[in-house]
Amino acid sequence: MNAPTSPQMATSALPFNAGHLDELLARAGIDVLIASTRHNIQYLVGGDYRFFFFERFDANGISRYLPLLIYVRGKPEATVYIGNGMEAYEKENGRFWMPTVEYAGTSLAAMTAAVAHLRHLGPETLRIGVERAFLPADAEELLRREMPRTEIRDALLPLERLRAVKTPRELDLLRAASEKVVRSMLAVIESHGPGTSKFELAEALRREEIDRGLTFEYCLVTAGTSLNRAPSPQRLNEGDIFSLDSGGNYRGYIGDLCRMAILGEPDSELVDLLGAIEEVQQAARRPIRAGAIGREIYASAGEALRRFPQAHRVEFVAHGMGLVTHEAPRLTDTGPIPYPATDADEPLQAGMVLSIETTLPHATRGFIKLEDTVAVTKDGWEAFGDDGRGWNRAGTAV
Amino acid sequence: MNAPTSPQMATSALPFNAGHLDELLARAGIDVLIASTRHNIQYLVGGDYRFFFFERFDANGISRYLPLLIYVRGKPEATVYIGNGMEAYEKENGRFWMPTVEYAGTSLAAMTAAVAHLRHLGPETLRIGVERAFLPADAEELLRREMPRTEIRDALLPLERLRAVKTPRELDLLRAASEKVVRSMLAVIESHGPGTSKFELAEALRREEIDRGLTFEYCLVTAGTSLNRAPSPQRLNEGDIFSLDSGGNYRGYIGDLCRMAILGEPDSELVDLLGAIEEVQQAARRPIRAGAIGREIYASAGEALRRFPQAHRVEFVAHGMGLVTHEAPRLTDTGPIPYPATDADEPLQAGMVLSIETTLPHATRGFIKLEDTVAVTKDGWEAFGDDGRGWNRAGTAV
Repeated sequence: MNAPTSPQMATSALPFNAGHLDELLARAGIDVLIASTRHNIQYLVGGDYRFFFFERFDANGISRYLPLLIYVRGKPEATVYIGNGMEAYEKENGRFWMPTVEYAGTSLAAMTAAVAHLRHLGPETLRIGVERAFLPADAEELLRREMPRTEIRDALLPLERLRAVKTPRELDLLRAASEKVVRSMLAVIESHGPGTSKFELAEALRREEIDRGLTFEYCLVTAGTSLNRAPSPQRLNEGDIFSLDSGGNYRGYIGDLCRMAILGEPDSELVDLLGAIEEVQQAARRPIRAGAIGREIYASAGEALRRFPQAHRVEFVAHGMGLVTHEAPRLTDTGPIPYPATDADEPLQAGMVLSIETTLPHATRGFIKLEDTVAVTKDGWEAFGDDGRGWNRAGTAV
Repeated sequence: MNAPTSPQMATSALPFNAGHLDELLARAGIDVLIASTRHNIQYLVGGDYRFFFFERFDANGISRYLPLLIYVRGKPEATVYIGNGMEAYEKENGRFWMPTVEYAGTSLAAMTAAVAHLRHLGPETLRIGVERAFLPADAEELLRREMPRTEIRDALLPLERLRAVKTPRELDLLRAASEKVVRSMLAVIESHGPGTSKFELAEALRREEIDRGLTFEYCLVTAGTSLNRAPSPQRLNEGDIFSLDSGGNYRGYIGDLCRMAILGEPDSELVDLLGAIEEVQQAARRPIRAGAIGREIYASAGEALRRFPQAHRVEFVAHGMGLVTHEAPRLTDTGPIPYPATDADEPLQAGMVLSIETTLPHATRGFIKLEDTVAVTKDGWEAFGDDGRGWNRAGTAV
């Protein structure tokens, strides 16, 4: 892509819906957006862009990598990207659609470059949206000092709402991520038997995911009757159940699912417990379709939960996912993190993707959980990577 | 490890030198340290601790993962770690030496928990050291609002000085990281011939590093006469030179080296150019030993540079490395990032680890570079992963 020569920019050339972003920013009272997180930079730059050098770490010398993308509401042609000096290679390779790309080596240098552009927007009071849980304190202080009439607001919610409905291409990436995570789990399960440690299970899953082209994120793992989900030296014994709950991303898009395994055959109680969890998971899917109200998912799951033998111990949660493991739509107004906004009473839209989780930390039988990824469609839903949802027999290919 | 029952704590039980940290904090005018970065949390918690769930990403719901470690100067027994709820599994597994471990789900909740502890330290004005290029703006604002008499200082420099001299165990990890990176490069070089793209080279290196137990960080790669170092669809041709400059970490400790390859045989000009770079690299090592002054490295390299055929195009840099790719000792007072402090006139200490880089972006022959890792010893130096420093023939095992 080349920089446009005209001051106007066709919004169809942008990798995101600029009209929607403008509307969300207006509603949040934001005139200028400064995005700084990897996931939002990837979304706004497009083409699955994450600067490869700082994809994993950000510490660098006496400061850190701090990419800043400045978007002026209603003026995509004024967009500025401030990256690291080595991103000039990516500019040369045509990875950036915005006409202006600059480079800075520290958090303060990046914000200083941003301020120079903000000053051109005129002397009036600007309402600037930043990602306040991520923007470094030193960079925000510089912004406040240099632009004292500026009002700083949090841009997290408008940005996650912008990302909430996925494009067909994003759905393909999320489907691929989920399928690769589940296939990796089933490969680990069939190839590991008694004596395997939880460290080894997590490491084996990491390699299976990487071999399938995923970037491994984490593996939560339980074994036997323990409810501890951290990889550890604990070893599998004959008859043990175990759970694998792992996240891996495919070009930034998260696959995050949980599957159960057993070394041997499940007894009837285990069959019933996982069956009851499966019923809750299926009940949660039932109301899903474009136009359904978010809260219906919890209502339907709650009904199945009431028939559950250990209902008081069960945790049910459903939430949006995409470039971030927990993002919009937010289907509840309660939860482990207090939500400042909820979509519980809003209609679901085709292209939203939900993670649905039912967890039973059983007092004597161990940790039993299913987590699924379900995309909202016009007429219903599509579950991604929907295999292996029963008791998977472990060690069958040892 | 168990929480101590006495209010005093044996500093020998700590994973770092508490006396040294106290001295560095006193010199920086810091009464209380709040560390928040993965690398400093790893260093202060010990045992290569990085919470596995958030090892790669930090975004989570409407906020992010923000671990905080509060260290009161002179009172290691008052240390508090505030992690994510799932780190209770790691507490149960005995991963934390500090008596108090708490959990929080957002940046604001973490800092709110920290403030509750800070208040117990008394009503006097506290000077608090934070990592200002990393601490989120919302968390620092909360700290300022709740503790208005507090003075906030930057703790980056005392923390990197604390990490500058490596323990024998850290040296082992850095040696292993360097060796694994170089072996990965040599494996990629011998197994790839004409037609390979730079994307494929970077992906092959990623897999070789992962297979050797490294966490892959990045791969800078050039091919032919191009000076562009980003992975791209550009393909290798017969006769091309190429460079691989990659970082991978082993339990958090960085291996970061650059090696050269060629598809065919180098002509005499290429032999001379890499030979001249090698001379600069060796000249840089010559003065290295405990007690030598940092600036001598640049002086010695500079002398070799003056004999270099294209000296004006050559970039030489030497800097400390460890958990961060560029860290103390800082051997120059200039550089791509303006250093607020330099170690150029300080004596080197045994256990410091240096990255030494000589780069020639040649106008017609392409990008030629060597980067080495050299540890300071009592009597001299030890180079880690010091193989493959000439023209490595590519595609010999295709």
